[in-house]
Order: sequence, then structure tokens, then C-alpha cells
Amino acid sequence: MKAAVIGGTGYSAIELIRLLHHHPYAHLDTIVSHSNGGTELHEIYPHVTNLIDTPLQALDIKKLSQKIQVVFFATPSGVSKEMIPAFLDEGIRCIDLSGDFRLRSQQSYEKWYRHQAAEETYLKKAVYGLSEINEAQIKGSTFISNPGCYPTATLLALIPALQLGFIDQDNIIIDAKSGVSGAGRGLSLATHYGEVNENVKAYKLGAHQHIPEIEQTLQTACHFSKSITFTTHLVPMTRGIMCTIYTNLTKQVATEDITLAYTEYYQDHPFVRIRPSGTVPATKEVYGSNFCDIGFHADERTGKLTIVSVIDNLIKGASGQAIQNLNLMNGWDVRTGLLNIPLYP
Amino acid sequence: MKAAVIGGTGYSAIELIRLLHHHPYAHLDTIVSHSNGGTELHEIYPHVTNLIDTPLQALDIKKLSQKIQVVFFATPSGVSKEMIPAFLDEGIRCIDLSGDFRLRSQQSYEKWYRHQAAEETYLKKAVYGLSEINEAQIKGSTFISNPGCYPTATLLALIPALQLGFIDQDNIIIDAKSGVSGAGRGLSLATHYGEVNENVKAYKLGAHQHIPEIEQTLQTACHFSKSITFTTHLVPMTRGIMCTIYTNLTKQVATEDITLAYTEYYQDHPFVRIRPSGTVPATKEVYGSNFCDIGFHADERTGKLTIVSVIDNLIKGASGQAIQNLNLMNGWDVRTGLLNIPLYP
Amino acid sequence: MKAAVIGGTGYSAIELIRLLHHHPYAHLDTIVSHSNGGTELHEIYPHVTNLIDTPLQALDIKKLSQKIQVVFFATPSGVSKEMIPAFLDEGIRCIDLSGDFRLRSQQSYEKWYRHQAAEETYLKKAVYGLSEINEAQIKGSTFISNPGCYPTATLLALIPALQLGFIDQDNIIIDAKSGVSGAGRGLSLATHYGEVNENVKAYKLGAHQHIPEIEQTLQTACHFSKSITFTTHLVPMTRGIMCTIYTNLTKQVATEDITLAYTEYYQDHPFVRIRPSGTVPATKEVYGSNFCDIGFHADERTGKLTIVSVIDNLIKGASGQAIQNLNLMNGWDVRTGLLNIPLYP
Amino acid sequence: MKAAVIGGTGYSAIELIRLLHHHPYAHLDTIVSHSNGGTELHEIYPHVTNLIDTPLQALDIKKLSQKIQVVFFATPSGVSKEMIPAFLDEGIRCIDLSGDFRLRSQQSYEKWYRHQAAEETYLKKAVYGLSEINEAQIKGSTFISNPGCYPTATLLALIPALQLGFIDQDNIIIDAKSGVSGAGRGLSLATHYGEVNENVKAYKLGAHQHIPEIEQTLQTACHFSKSITFTTHLVPMTRGIMCTIYTNLTKQVATEDITLAYTEYYQDHPFVRIRPSGTVPATKEVYGSNFCDIGFHADERTGKLTIVSVIDNLIKGASGQAIQNLNLMNGWDVRTGLLNIPLYP
Repeated sequence: MKAAVIGGTGYSAIELIRLLHHHPYAHLDTIVSHSNGGTELHEIYPHVTNLIDTPLQALDIKKLSQKIQVVFFATPSGVSKEMIPAFLDEGIRCIDLSGDFRLRSQQSYEKWYRHQAAEETYLKKAVYGLSEINEAQIKGSTFISNPGCYPTATLLALIPALQLGFIDQDNIIIDAKSGVSGAGRGLSLATHYGEVNENVKAYKLGAHQHIPEIEQTLQTACHFSKSITFTTHLVPMTRGIMCTIYTNLTKQVATEDITLAYTEYYQDHPFVRIRPSGTVPATKEVYGSNFCDIGFHADERTGKLTIVSVIDNLIKGASGQAIQNLNLMNGWDVRTGLLNIPLYP
Repeated sequence: MKAAVIGGTGYSAIELIRLLHHHPYAHLDTIVSHSNGGTELHEIYPHVTNLIDTPLQALDIKKLSQKIQVVFFATPSGVSKEMIPAFLDEGIRCIDLSGDFRLRSQQSYEKWYRHQAAEETYLKKAVYGLSEINEAQIKGSTFISNPGCYPTATLLALIPALQLGFIDQDNIIIDAKSGVSGAGRGLSLATHYGEVNENVKAYKLGAHQHIPEIEQTLQTACHFSKSITFTTHLVPMTRGIMCTIYTNLTKQVATEDITLAYTEYYQDHPFVRIRPSGTVPATKEVYGSNFCDIGFHADERTGKLTIVSVIDNLIKGASGQAIQNLNLMNGWDVRTGLLNIPLYP
Repeated sequence: MKAAVIGGTGYSAIELIRLLHHHPYAHLDTIVSHSNGGTELHEIYPHVTNLIDTPLQALDIKKLSQKIQVVFFATPSGVSKEMIPAFLDEGIRCIDLSGDFRLRSQQSYEKWYRHQAAEETYLKKAVYGLSEINEAQIKGSTFISNPGCYPTATLLALIPALQLGFIDQDNIIIDAKSGVSGAGRGLSLATHYGEVNENVKAYKLGAHQHIPEIEQTLQTACHFSKSITFTTHLVPMTRGIMCTIYTNLTKQVATEDITLAYTEYYQDHPFVRIRPSGTVPATKEVYGSNFCDIGFHADERTGKLTIVSVIDNLIKGASGQAIQNLNLMNGWDVRTGLLNIPLYP
Repeated sequence: MKAAVIGGTGYSAIELIRLLHHHPYAHLDTIVSHSNGGTELHEIYPHVTNLIDTPLQALDIKKLSQKIQVVFFATPSGVSKEMIPAFLDEGIRCIDLSGDFRLRSQQSYEKWYRHQAAEETYLKKAVYGLSEINEAQIKGSTFISNPGCYPTATLLALIPALQLGFIDQDNIIIDAKSGVSGAGRGLSLATHYGEVNENVKAYKLGAHQHIPEIEQTLQTACHFSKSITFTTHLVPMTRGIMCTIYTNLTKQVATEDITLAYTEYYQDHPFVRIRPSGTVPATKEVYGSNFCDIGFHADERTGKLTIVSVIDNLIKGASGQAIQNLNLMNGWDVRTGLLNIPLYP
């Protein structure tokens, strides 16, 4: 199966390129870069020297459609919604890593993203690619809207507890910490080394575009009808997201019981690892891998359940989950090309 | 005024030594180090070369009591409770940076610290040195129990909102992130560079000894009668604490109003800086200073108030506040020796 | 082929375990840990949860010799020299990642390592496993002494220039910078986060045990008869070594010519990547990979050739090169299990 | 004395502003910012909240000349050469932190900086402000060209050894490592967190504009007639420069003797600290201070002297030395406003 990556010089794109290069069934045929057409990838990313000689190209949808079977979009928001219809109309499979097709409501998209939404017709075709939760729909799909990094870490941690009735819908608070690569390779003061190093910073309080994505998915998966509180923080590291999630237990229950229930819930899903009762994961423990690791603390004194989930934001939070969805769409073993041990230390 | 620092080779101690060296009225006379008596400070901390030639000494309470007027304890928990009575009996002022005298209840201390509590008689003499909140008592005191780093950042952010009735007592959640220096200079896997770098880690869920300290102070200052949820995280940086505090608003109120109310509340307290409405502080913005900066987000959609407070854990969270308390005890301007601009970047 | 790793909880060991787990022909059968026998690996390294369930065992040379065909030693210096004779006598292949068998001269070992050298008989059996340079001997060998991290980065960069006559033997200066993982997982002030972060530190000036290792190899490979100047620095990162090597050109030559000559020299060696003329590599560009990347600057003004080489110290500088040697010993494609794209960013 | 800072939003500028704020005799009257005139400093640098309320202003040389006695230029190269003549003509003292007036030869400037040099007349008026070495000229001067960060660390380490005849002029090699703040606050891929973190990078090999600055000063101070080899590296930290300098000893001499000679050489210069024989300084040991710390290793085996010098690049390497020069120009104690203990950890 031949694949193209559009948006070829961002961090999600280079991670896609790496994963595709190591994938046994998918072949990276074309890398499209608006800004760097004509140059070699190793000029922009010297770490691929001698390994990838696919040159960067300008976009030519017609020509591309004749060569490839699947396109990955690693583009800024607002871009893929202009391109995807043409590819879908040509029968090409699309996996969109941007936010353009994640929100089913155009109004909601325009409120949170602050630009025009995708067309309704195509919006309806998109399947939300939260691999473990929506596996069935993904399998039959030709167009995947790949989840955001924060929603992935949040939803995998939260959905079982809500579905199994351990926690109630009120007062769900998600405190998220992310490495800087989530902000991409674009230049901004927010990613300047001098501003990030030795610094923790909260940003977009109450205004992050991942809030409606999380709420929408909880509505579908758990009949959720409330609002979540969600705060994102930038911490001085390159990769990794931790979500510390605070919830109200519906009844007194031991950490062991939660752990057991989650282990069962995810027993057929190798990329979610439930940690032994009494322990919680750290971000480095999934570094460079497609795992989402989850641990719990049920607190008798306060009646609260704290859930800690971690992912590598560029892999399970972006390009790895995209490959996982590619595997599902094609009926390949979901682990294909993805089951490596995290890099530690 | 002649001062001694006991516990002379930890990070809080070296920060105390630095601040005392620059203080116009207090003079650092003696540095006591159990493990390094006889060596020069610059052998252990080369950055003081040519600046401080006070040698490290073994402890001799009698001799010390004849020379100095105030003793700072920068010792691990369990140590100062054995030494402080003797100094107090000799009429020496004591400022304890450890947790030994922070909890009024011996049972509570023994439950959370897991060793024997200080004697009741001396426990009663200790004034909790949260400088801005307890200024009046500190002024007349001869024995200060200096607050923990997390409680300082939490309490300064939380007390006004509770006292002014903006928030209710239920569902107070504190998500705390700390640099690694808070764990001290002692060796452990938790402070090993390879384990901390590129990593975020949650620890002591529901079990941190600062939980009862925060609750006790809220009880006194705000008639608080509930439990808090408090989770600490280690982030890959040396200095800095951020507390992101989630609370329920009692009524709809704008971020501007909260900002204004806090600005008034702290108008006579130069070390608390309330940030302009719509902004929140980052840890690096107080790096190397005694400030606690606070910002707010009142969310209409969720009815929640999120408070973000930051400190330098070694200064306002330990040694700086100790000097601030020394200033208050002596009737000196509270800013003496402390009002420097944070080091940025 | 069944393999054992001895010294199972250090950083080189865990990297060996990761690489063996992904290797198609070698199977990790046994992990030996002196200090943690009986525990599960995931208790010590949670990142292997659900992936590796090999328990840690105490050492039993007899039993081990009946089960496995190759043993890797990831032990501190002084340990493997006691164990390797027994394994070799049983006909088991040994790959030693420690320094015990690197120096051919016992006197030299005892001078630089400051403890007793290995037995002469076994010392003579060891082949120095600098894969690209000693490929022929490694192929026929059953006992490999795996090179040090600094010597690997230094020698691959220096040997061609000396052999090809571009530079003279005088005034070779190697300024080496390393991430902290090279110091291992053991606890010491030198690896404490608060001491390493935001810090560059030179150490062991003129006294590093890799000096005689480099000189000895240059003697064999290049008739080298002088001394090198070699200084190591610790920089605040986890992985990566850069050697900046300063040499005197024997004649005026362009950077292009050097680049071309090295490209030819290493044309059959996929793990050495020569960078395009005018560019030099950065450490992150080989992160998580077995590559050694090299770039040049021939300076007309000064008559100097500066060579910059980089490796991931835990992979090409330790465990990756060990696997590369395993491949060579067994006649497998040298790239087996090792040819992944570096993780970037 | 009233001072203005021009170029008010870069890292050197904010450091100047901090130091001037704490200076007892100089008063920061005006901050000029081309790009941010009209805004408040705390909007750009929130860490000065409540401390500095000087608004940023557009440049008006006439008006400024009537109010202030000294101007600091913290501008990119090519800017100050256009402005300084006007200020000098009005009798205003100028301290230029850029490279515009460092090279006496216009041709050399144009070769290394690649744009037009300053006017000869004004070039001749500039005194090179390497405080310890040129103290006498600085004292009588009204126009200081403040040294570059790398030249400061290099020259203070190298000049005594050359002047005292310990080393010869051949084969002087300077391997320099710098934190990222030296590249300023401007946006570039080279300062993007994802590119810098966990990375060491060599840059501008043989082409750094500090090479002619170092050589010119050595010519004046030491009759130097050769070329130096100088390579700069970016390491993942915010502040700090280390220069590791490799030289040939003219005769066999012990590290102790060098140490003693340097201690004497700098005995009246409090900001140069010579480390005890056998030890070398680390960058963090001068963090946040105006010190240049120097240590030595004379190697009997190789006949080489290795000198390690460290500075905080924003203080001794820029703004601190500028204040030191201000002190000298005015006949104030050189330590005024500068003698603080480094911030550690």
C-alpha cells in the first residue's frame, strides 16, 4: 500500500515518515511540503541522512491520486478541510491528524477554532479515530479524523470509569502537562528555548480547542451531559503528555478494583497498559512508543478517584495512533510497525 | 544580629546562607553540618569561593547559644524537634524550615510523617510562619515554624477566595508541579538525572505530608471543614513550584473582580503579586526571588475558578520566607535583603 | 540463539535488553542481576510493562552455560574479568561491555583503572570490538571486548584521517561532551539532577581511562606513536556524545576532499554516516540509533582539520555496538535489529 | 547618574535593566525599544511586574541627550554604529554591548560581520572594555566597546599564561560551549526548544566573528602573532559559557605553579576567581553572577596545559561587565551592584 504524507516538515509529519519507513505493509511514496518543495528531506532533518531519499514535493492532487492509496494530513488546522474532499472523491483513504474533522458541529468548530468549518457532507464521513474505543467503526472506514493528543490521553483514562459507573459526571477536572513538541516546529516565543527551559506555564485556560473534542466523545461513549474543566500546561521537555484527572467516586471502591476493571476493559488492546495497583506511570515510561499507560488512586478520605495517564504526544497522541488506525482500516494486526519498547532512559 | 544555620549542606541551607550573606542586619556567624564538620563550605559548594569563608562546624548548642541570637534549622524532618527545645530554653530565636513543628496535632504528625512528634509544650510555642497571613503573630514571636513549599503556594492563592466567599469549600483540588530541588541534595533514584530529565512524574498520591498542613491552616484562617485533594508532580527543572487550583465559584463572577479583590487583599504585601486579569504566571517569572505570583480564570461555562500560583520553592517556599519571617520578628522592613528582580531568562 | 545479560539493571543492560527483544535471531533468555534477583524487571523499569516478563535472577554460571550461547556483560569494571573465564571455558560466547579486557597491557589497566587487571591468558583471547575497523577479526571471534563510548566516537572519526595521511600525529586534541546516562544509574552527586541541570562540567582531566584505550587502538590501526589530549565534559542531557577533534593538516586540503575520502572509506559500513561537506552533525540526530555521524571543517587560515563526530552513547557507544558485534560474530547482516531511524525531535 | 538602555527587549537588555535597578548610583531613566515603543515592560517581561514601571519608548536622541548621562546599547550588530556618533557628539557616555566597535580594522569587521563597518573616527574613540585587562584605559574613557561573551571567557583565561610565558603561541585551541540565551530572544530554528533540548551542536566552524576579536586582543596584550582555532557549541541550557582551552606548555610546570601565578595576577580583581589546584569550575558555579572562574590542568604526559574558564554569558559576558565598566569609568568601586553570590542550584 502506497502512502503520502502532506505537511512534510512538521514534527508529526517526520514522526509519520519514521513510522511508515519501518512499517512492513505501507510504503511511503510521497512527501508533500508546501514550503520546501524541491529540497531533500535530509536537508531539513539531517537525522534521516542515508535512510530516506524521498524528495519533498509540491502538492498535485491529481497525480498523487493515481499513485497512492492513502494520504496522511499533518497540516495546521484549516488546511486539510480544503484538500480532503478531492482525495475522498478519488477514492483515496484519508487520515487527518489536524482538528478539521474532529468536531461534528460546525458551530462548535467555529467557536473554538475561530475559523470556518469543513463542509457538512464531508464532516459526516469522518470517523473519529480513537483506536481502542472506536475500533469497530474504524475498521470499516476510509476517512479517519485522528484524535488530538490531549483527548487521547484523557479519553482512554476516563471512558471506562464513566461507562462502568465508578465515577459521576460532575466535577471532572483534567490537569494536563505537555512537552513542547506538541506546539510543532513553527517559530514562536512559546517554543523559544530561553522561555521554556526551567519553566512551567499554564495556557489557554478554559479556551483550549480540545475541550469540545473531549466532551463530544464523552457524550457519545458515556451519555455525558456535563462540562469538563481542562487546563493545559507546558513543561520543559520535548515529548510526553500526562493527564492527571480528578473525579468523584460514586461509591467507596478500592484502587485494586478499579485497576482490575480497567485491565479487563483493555485486555484486547495492547497499547493501553494498566499499571499495578498503587503505582502510576511517568511520561518517560512511554517515550518513543505508542502506549497509553494508566494508573489510579482511589482516596477513601476524600471520596475522589485520581487517574494518571501518559502518552508520547507525537506517537499515541498523533502519528502512532494514525498508523494504528491505518492497521485497523486494513485489517492488519493493530500492532504492526508499532510494538517497540519505549526508549529509556 | 548573629545567626547560625544548622544543616549546612542541603539546598535550603545554601540558599539561607546566600540570603543571610546579602542581608544588611543579620550576620551569618556559624554554619553547622553534622556530616561535614571541619571542611570549608567552598569544598562542598564551589560557587561560594572567595565569598564565604565560614567553616562548617559540628554542633555545640552551649557554645552556640552564647554567640548567636537566632538559629535556622534546615534539617530533615525529625531532627529539629530534638534540638529546638534547648535553644529556646536559652532564649535563642528559632526558625525551623523542617516540618517538625508545623502540625499542631501530634497524632496527625505521626500519621503523615510516620515518626514521633515533637513535645506538646514546644509544639504550642511555634508560630506558623506564613508571612502574609500570620504577620501579626509572627511579629511578636521567638519561634517560627516555617511553612512547606507547596502549602505556601497553595495557601496564599486559596485563603482570600475562601475568606471573601468567592468559592465554596467542596471540591478543592490542587494540582502541584515542582522542580527537583525540592527533594534536596540527598541521593535517590528520584533525583537521578537520567530518571528526571524528559519526564513528568506524579508521586505520593493522597499521602503527601503537606495535605494536613494545608487543611489545618485553612481551618484556622477560613473555618474550613472539608478535605482537599492534593497531588504533587515532579517536572524536569531545578527550581519552581506551580499550583493549579480548581474550585467551585459560589456565584457568577468575572475574572476581573477576583483580580481586583486579591490586589486589594495583598496591597500591603509586596511579595505577593497579583497578575493582570486574563493572565497567569509561569514559574520562571519568580525564579531566584521571594515572590508568589497569582493569576485567575473564572469560567462562566463551568462555574469553576482556576487559580494559578507560582513560587521559587527554595526562596518563598523555604529560605526566603524564613528571612521574611526574621524581618517581621525583628520589626525590620519585610523587604530587607529580599527585594530582587527574578532572574530571567 | 539464546542470550543472557549480566548486570541487568543498569542503563547499558536495559538498552541491551530492548535491542535483544527486537532482534529477529537472538533471544533474550536470562537476565542476571546481583542486587535484584527474584524481582520482575518491570518493577525496576516500568517502561517494559507487559513486554518483557523475564524475571531477574542470581548468577549460576553452570546452569546458565547449559542454556545459552552468548553472554553480555553490562557490569562495572572489575566484575567481568572474574566471570568471563568460566564462560569461555564452557564454550560460551562472551561480549563484555565493561573495560576489563580493553587494554592489552595489564600495567596500563592497573595504572588507569586502579585495580587488578584480568588474567593474561584471557586478555589475549579478547578481540576489541570496534565494529567498522576490526570487522575481520570480530567475524571469527568468540570473545569481544566492546569499546568504550568515547573511544568509539573518537576512533571512527580519527582513524581514516591518520591512515589516509591527511593529518599528522602531533597535537591531536579531543574535546568530548557527553550526556549523563554514560555515568550509569548508580547514585552519585555527579548525576544528581540539581547538580547537572543547567550546568556544563569538565571531569577527569588527563586521567580518563579511555585515553589509553584510544591510544592503543591508534597504535595498532595507524602506527600512532604520540600522546593524545583528551578532555571529557558532562552536559545537561540524557543521551549523546559529541567529540570535537582538533588536528593538524599535513597539507592544504578542502573539506570536500576529506568528506569524499571518508565517504569512500566507510562505504560498506551503514552505521557510519558522513555528512555533506560544510555541515557537521548534532547529537540529537543520532538519538536512539546505532549511527556514528561525522562532519569536517578544514580551515585554510589555521591549517587545522576539525572533525565532529556524534553517537548515542548507550547504543553505538555501548549496547548497539555489542549487538552489531553479535551480528558480525554470527555472520548475520550487520544491520540486523539495528537499522532504525533516530528519534527526532 | 541617569542611564538609558537601547534595545530594550532582548536578553542582554533585560539583564542590564535588572542590574541597573539594583545599582546604588546609576538610575535607569529610559528604556528604548524600536519594536515595542508605548508598551509597558511587564507586558513583555512579566517577571518585572510591580518592580519596574519605566515604559518602553521610541528613540529620540535629542530628548534623550538632555536627560541622561550614559547610554547602553543592547542592539543587534549594525545598529549602534549608526547611533553612537550622535550621542558621543552630545557628550553622552556610551557603552556598546554589540560588536560594532570591537574590531579596530574596518576590513576585518566587514569580512567577519559581513556588513559595513563603523566610521574610522568613532572606531578610534572606542576603548575595548575587557575590564580586568584594560582597567587603566577604561577608567579614563567615555566610550566603551563591551567585549563579546566568548572573548571574555577566553581572554581572561589565556592572557596571563601568554604574558607570563607558560605557553607558546602555537596550537592554541579553544573549545567553547554556550547556553542558548547567547543567541538572544529572536526567533529561529536554532533556538527552538525541540531542536535544542537533548542536543549538542557545533556551529560557525572557523567563521565565528569572535575569532578576530580574540586574536586582536591577544596581539595587543601578548604580542600574539599566530592564529587561534576556535569552535563554538550550543548546549541545552539557558545560561553559561565554558571555554576549554588547549595550549602547549613552554616548559614542564606543575598545575600548582600555574594556579599560584594566576591567583597573583588577578589578586586585585574580585570578579576573577582562580580555583584551587586540581579542580576546574562548572558553569553553574557562576550562574547569575559577574564572576569568571578559572581552573587548570598541566599534563606532564602530554606537555599540554588545559585551562577551563566559565562565565554567565549574560552577566560577565555582557551586561554585568558593562556595569563593571560603568563603575570603572565613574571611579566607583568596581564591585558596586555586582557582588552577589551565584544562584545555586
